[in-house]
Amino acid sequence: MAEQQDVISLSLDELYSLVRKALMHHGVSDRHADAIARVITQGERDECHSHGIYRLLGCVRSVQSGKVDPRAEPTVRDVAPGVLAVDAHHGFSLLAFEMGLPMLAEKARSQGLAAMAINRCFHFSALWPEVEAIAAQGLVGLAMNPSHSWVAPAGGTRGVFGTNPIAFAWPRAAGHPFVFDFATSAIARGDIELHAREGRPIPPHWAIGPDGRPTTDARAALEGAMQTFGGHKGSALAAMVELLAGALIGDLTSMESQAFDDGAGASPCHGELVIAIDPQRFLGGGYAAGQARAEGLFAAVVEQGARLPSQRRFEARARSMRDGVRISAALYRDVLELFDT
Amino acid sequence: MAEQQDVISLSLDELYSLVRKALMHHGVSDRHADAIARVITQGERDECHSHGIYRLLGCVRSVQSGKVDPRAEPTVRDVAPGVLAVDAHHGFSLLAFEMGLPMLAEKARSQGLAAMAINRCFHFSALWPEVEAIAAQGLVGLAMNPSHSWVAPAGGTRGVFGTNPIAFAWPRAAGHPFVFDFATSAIARGDIELHAREGRPIPPHWAIGPDGRPTTDARAALEGAMQTFGGHKGSALAAMVELLAGALIGDLTSMESQAFDDGAGASPCHGELVIAIDPQRFLGGGYAAGQARAEGLFAAVVEQGARLPSQRRFEARARSMRDGVRISAALYRDVLELFDT
Repeated sequence: MAEQQDVISLSLDELYSLVRKALMHHGVSDRHADAIARVITQGERDECHSHGIYRLLGCVRSVQSGKVDPRAEPTVRDVAPGVLAVDAHHGFSLLAFEMGLPMLAEKARSQGLAAMAINRCFHFSALWPEVEAIAAQGLVGLAMNPSHSWVAPAGGTRGVFGTNPIAFAWPRAAGHPFVFDFATSAIARGDIELHAREGRPIPPHWAIGPDGRPTTDARAALEGAMQTFGGHKGSALAAMVELLAGALIGDLTSMESQAFDDGAGASPCHGELVIAIDPQRFLGGGYAAGQARAEGLFAAVVEQGARLPSQRRFEARARSMRDGVRISAALYRDVLELFDT
Repeated sequence: MAEQQDVISLSLDELYSLVRKALMHHGVSDRHADAIARVITQGERDECHSHGIYRLLGCVRSVQSGKVDPRAEPTVRDVAPGVLAVDAHHGFSLLAFEMGLPMLAEKARSQGLAAMAINRCFHFSALWPEVEAIAAQGLVGLAMNPSHSWVAPAGGTRGVFGTNPIAFAWPRAAGHPFVFDFATSAIARGDIELHAREGRPIPPHWAIGPDGRPTTDARAALEGAMQTFGGHKGSALAAMVELLAGALIGDLTSMESQAFDDGAGASPCHGELVIAIDPQRFLGGGYAAGQARAEGLFAAVVEQGARLPSQRRFEARARSMRDGVRISAALYRDVLELFDT
């Protein structure tokens, strides 16, 4: 650890230990603390600051709210040949994902594709660590979840949808998978929170204020509603996420999740849908040709100077694995204060 | 049929017969002609003009190009418990979809979810008729396909992706399903074609010209590259469609499809991925509650004055089923001329 110009440098191991200890200090079980510290470290490592150590604060706030069971043991249920469900029993989502992943992979390999519902989980993380974990098994991953009803439908004025991220990963024989993970809102909620925290204005297409009109004030945006990306198309995708990762899996929509929170300010409690697809099962003897075809696509993007999604993140990862991470001294102090309560 | 002010009125039956006869005049088998005429009539009925009778012209052009086998009999193959593949044998896609649908539905009901690859098909239709057919069986439908490499990736200057539509349908107990179907390009290729045909300018965010810069000239756009909707997010989705409905199913990417066409100007030949999900299998005894939850979501959208996707299309459908359809006399003449060659 080193302090310089209001910035603290930490190795990835130091960061992981700090997060893990802070969680256990607040009564989180060691299995949950492991799973959460791993993902928060991955977020900071990849310079996804809104999903890095900043999220630890919200995580602890969720525990303090009394809504989350920080020691809940997830249970896995075999629903159908292509479907499993993991009940998180109102614990955090990440351990539930880890516990369901082996059966999801097994089902995908035997059926060609399979779906995993994670139910009754508190969710605060990005989805790319999960689809990357699926791709690490040679499978295609797709994941989505609702959140709180912060986002207005296209043409509307009030929040109905969550930020409703969709993440996808395609495994590649060499190097990192092709991965994207984006909110169907114009921007991630965490980014508006960071702008509000730092008193910075936001672009007008991110959100509407409590009066239903576009605003550049991050605090007004947090009280109003966010907009979807891409107009009616993003709005349609946001609705799909509510249906597939809410109604289909017997879990809360973003409106219901927000009502469940009842002003406690915890991480949203809802479900998550994860789909895994086995390209070996689809392609059989044509597997290598299918992989080569995908590589041809990626090359055609990169060769014209465009970026693949996650490229910046993988570059940040390489830097952080070499040099560790740097976080603001103010945020670091906030984290240390977690040990005082 | 009635002519008035350069507009021709046709009943849906008249339209269906006209399209069917024109196809059979050009050597299309009766089974293919039935399937195609049904979907073109649905497009015109719903006032999706770019996917209505206008597409008949391209369809016949595809047959005349010699690329399409207008009498190919699709074959269905059971690939895995959750996967089937229909080989269209270089015929049009619609009959292949119809022939695979029963096995897709059966697999979705037994496995919870299932995927159908349609391979080596010529494709010119919207996807909503297909996901609506899945929803009519009480299943959730998701479909996507590449096309020709008309669309540049975000940050790029040359076409790599197709217009790569994604369609989704959620079955509702009463009335029409919740359905969307949109191109991941900023606009459907057919809309630019219609603008070019009518000499109308296009908005600057739809496309770039051959020089790689935004253009309002529809003809320049057809020679340059289209843009994706929603910036890098739409671009990521377009890539996903190439991977899932191309590389995963052992079929052509949009670049390969364009190369295969080799300037013939036929409908794109490629594959299609269709996924069906059984909410009864996911929800069991919670099925009614899941349906009610979805209805609550739709109500929250509609009550604030926003529209559900496809709402305009369903309104057009009601009108057309009552009054028939009206097409321009110029287009009608083009259709009649098909009988002269």
